[in-house]
Amino acid sequence: MKLLIDEKGRKYLLGEGKDLHCNYGMIRAKDIEKAGVGGLVESNKGRKFNVLEPDILDFISKAKRGPQAMTLKDMGLISGYAGLESGSRVLEAGTGSGLLTMYLAHIVRPADVITYEVREDHARVARENFERFGIGNVDSRIGDLYDGIGEEGLDAVLLDLTEPWRVVPHLEGSLRVGGRLVSYSPSINQSRQLADVLEGYMHETFECILRHWKADTMRPDTRMLGHTGFLTVARKLK
Amino acid sequence: MKLLIDEKGRKYLLGEGKDLHCNYGMIRAKDIEKAGVGGLVESNKGRKFNVLEPDILDFISKAKRGPQAMTLKDMGLISGYAGLESGSRVLEAGTGSGLLTMYLAHIVRPADVITYEVREDHARVARENFERFGIGNVDSRIGDLYDGIGEEGLDAVLLDLTEPWRVVPHLEGSLRVGGRLVSYSPSINQSRQLADVLEGYMHETFECILRHWKADTMRPDTRMLGHTGFLTVARKLK
Amino acid sequence: MKLLIDEKGRKYLLGEGKDLHCNYGMIRAKDIEKAGVGGLVESNKGRKFNVLEPDILDFISKAKRGPQAMTLKDMGLISGYAGLESGSRVLEAGTGSGLLTMYLAHIVRPADVITYEVREDHARVARENFERFGIGNVDSRIGDLYDGIGEEGLDAVLLDLTEPWRVVPHLEGSLRVGGRLVSYSPSINQSRQLADVLEGYMHETFECILRHWKADTMRPDTRMLGHTGFLTVARKLK
Amino acid sequence: MKLLIDEKGRKYLLGEGKDLHCNYGMIRAKDIEKAGVGGLVESNKGRKFNVLEPDILDFISKAKRGPQAMTLKDMGLISGYAGLESGSRVLEAGTGSGLLTMYLAHIVRPADVITYEVREDHARVARENFERFGIGNVDSRIGDLYDGIGEEGLDAVLLDLTEPWRVVPHLEGSLRVGGRLVSYSPSINQSRQLADVLEGYMHETFECILRHWKADTMRPDTRMLGHTGFLTVARKLK
Repeated sequence: MKLLIDEKGRKYLLGEGKDLHCNYGMIRAKDIEKAGVGGLVESNKGRKFNVLEPDILDFISKAKRGPQAMTLKDMGLISGYAGLESGSRVLEAGTGSGLLTMYLAHIVRPADVITYEVREDHARVARENFERFGIGNVDSRIGDLYDGIGEEGLDAVLLDLTEPWRVVPHLEGSLRVGGRLVSYSPSINQSRQLADVLEGYMHETFECILRHWKADTMRPDTRMLGHTGFLTVARKLK
Repeated sequence: MKLLIDEKGRKYLLGEGKDLHCNYGMIRAKDIEKAGVGGLVESNKGRKFNVLEPDILDFISKAKRGPQAMTLKDMGLISGYAGLESGSRVLEAGTGSGLLTMYLAHIVRPADVITYEVREDHARVARENFERFGIGNVDSRIGDLYDGIGEEGLDAVLLDLTEPWRVVPHLEGSLRVGGRLVSYSPSINQSRQLADVLEGYMHETFECILRHWKADTMRPDTRMLGHTGFLTVARKLK
Repeated sequence: MKLLIDEKGRKYLLGEGKDLHCNYGMIRAKDIEKAGVGGLVESNKGRKFNVLEPDILDFISKAKRGPQAMTLKDMGLISGYAGLESGSRVLEAGTGSGLLTMYLAHIVRPADVITYEVREDHARVARENFERFGIGNVDSRIGDLYDGIGEEGLDAVLLDLTEPWRVVPHLEGSLRVGGRLVSYSPSINQSRQLADVLEGYMHETFECILRHWKADTMRPDTRMLGHTGFLTVARKLK
Repeated sequence: MKLLIDEKGRKYLLGEGKDLHCNYGMIRAKDIEKAGVGGLVESNKGRKFNVLEPDILDFISKAKRGPQAMTLKDMGLISGYAGLESGSRVLEAGTGSGLLTMYLAHIVRPADVITYEVREDHARVARENFERFGIGNVDSRIGDLYDGIGEEGLDAVLLDLTEPWRVVPHLEGSLRVGGRLVSYSPSINQSRQLADVLEGYMHETFECILRHWKADTMRPDTRMLGHTGFLTVARKLK
């Protein structure tokens, strides 16, 4: 795959050997090939594009997504506060469109990310994303974590579910001692209900407000994303 | 090593075979050994402690640190926005007390993190931290990145320096096309001066405000950390 | 004047004896009159509207305004931190579309607000607003505060200007000892340049981030206004 | 009264004819008198103090207060969103130590602020504050607003109570149509319970996060007040 970025910062992801066709003109695959990574190509309408090798962050930003897709800041925080690294044994639910799954897969590989989703239509979109971007270390399953967890010795369980507190009883045999539960919820009331059942865990709840700045004029952007979700991080003590 | 956590959530890191001696009493190594991970031990003063296996986040939280030590949220964001994963080729400066270095090392291993520090006293503290916690994949060097970068083909350059803009000219031959510079600065004026020289890069500047909540009463904490640093993420286009 | 509020919370301000004509139908003045304040009227399209007496906040929200019009939270803070009350002697610049002026006028009346504006077109819009809403205690002038201040013994000088630091030398003879300067600036760099010349003043700079919540689901709004301006409050000591 | 401010910005409020005795030395009343407002006095230990006339903001900052005393930003916002001005008919509960009462009194005078407090000990502290600072236009009463409101035609009802929703039924005959209820609550759950009973009102809930900056170095303060309260503003429609 190749990544083209135009003068306005718009990204175009192209399969190998594909021409670019967009509002700003057409570019032939062979011209992109000739320019190579780091090169500059020009469309027949005179627009210039930089040629790059895409990476996981490009895949995530160009993946098919639902309306409530997770942001990169939450992915970075979830992974960071869960202590994930190459080889970590991670279980995630729900898969949604699989954006967090892709992020996790790039952190823990060569280990697999196990991801559960109740809705087949969501799982299908997620699997298309994994396939399109060649992400092999994902074990995508249809299932409901409220019913139980079959795995054992997990390092982390990551939840983006409506009623995360219903999963907690199932962590007894599945999450290792010292392992972490990280739950993402839009409402602080969900965090409260989760916290209410976290006996035997050290836990904290926080939100992260990301604020973009115009560095040149030293002022924050006028419009911002005011809220994504509250994060609860819980560590199993016994 | 063993990690003991008391009823108030205080952490105690113990070398193998060491007894615990703290304000809340004494516990013998053999009792900790017998309790095992997930077990409970009691001090001679009647305090109870959970026994856990420490991980990288524990090491970071218990490492020797300076007054301006980086927070976990910034580590997670820096690593996330840099797109780091196992095998990434990362260069960092300055090392400081090595907390970010330790975090990066656990993400990119088995690759080494290359880290530069001008001050020998800081580098010494950092190396003691790496040694104490058994972190082997760090290449710690004394040197000034303002003078130049000897490495080539880096995936990411991560800066916590007073004048980050002085490093940008040296990225020409050292950061690969598509690779990322992430710079952390307390003042937005530093971000501005950096942004001013980022020609040939796509870049954005933001801050992340982390806000802890009392989940049970559904209210934010009264006191909070109002600021750590501004992050500038720049991607090399050519 | 009458204020009509529809089921979605949209406001309609009507001159005495005027019919309502809007996308949701028509209502005759006599029907509004008959319903009276606190009553309910229905349009010929079946929409219901509450009838109210408008007040200063309605006038401000329905006034003609430019793109950078000040928000109510900043008006409340400026007035509060300036210590304004009935009778306060206030000078303001620039007038802009006069929203802050209207707010100040309702606080300090029966005293006049003196307001300066360099641009005649802005002053004209502001004066139309004052006239439309019957706000008499405003002394609207064309002039540039960078050139000097003719008044003496002012309790407060309130600035929404590009280069507020240029006004500070003129406060010598015009702002009383103990009186306050409040300056509103989009960029923190403007606050810095102002602070640099505030010798002989106690001063502080802050911003206020207003965050709306959906109270029923206990979650913040997804989209929010991320920034309006930084406020510097300075008190003259000698 | 006189206000002395030392080189560090510390404030000292002195009754007429009183000497200053503080950690930084002693100053005689006659020397303060001689220096006059805008003058400089020096203590016997060589400390310098500016002499000012105190105003309402000084009184509020030096009043006796409880641990949860309201901040100036919330006072400015409450007054602003309630649309208060000279002559407004305002009822407030609970009085607490009377800081908001004092603020309101300076806005609405010559009208009285009616303020209710259940606890006699709190009311006593508040009344001492009103007396000490010569604030006459306050009608301080012992009573419980949950039991009912005796007044009629109020322009605004301002609540800082644990269960604000219990007051809403009593607004039927006491708050005028178009008048506003503003309620201040530490927990968003209180805001939710209030919003649940606000039928017949337009309402919004928000919080205001005040963030101080070091203007000279263009960075926010490291430590900040992360939370005071959520504000719900409700306007009576019928």
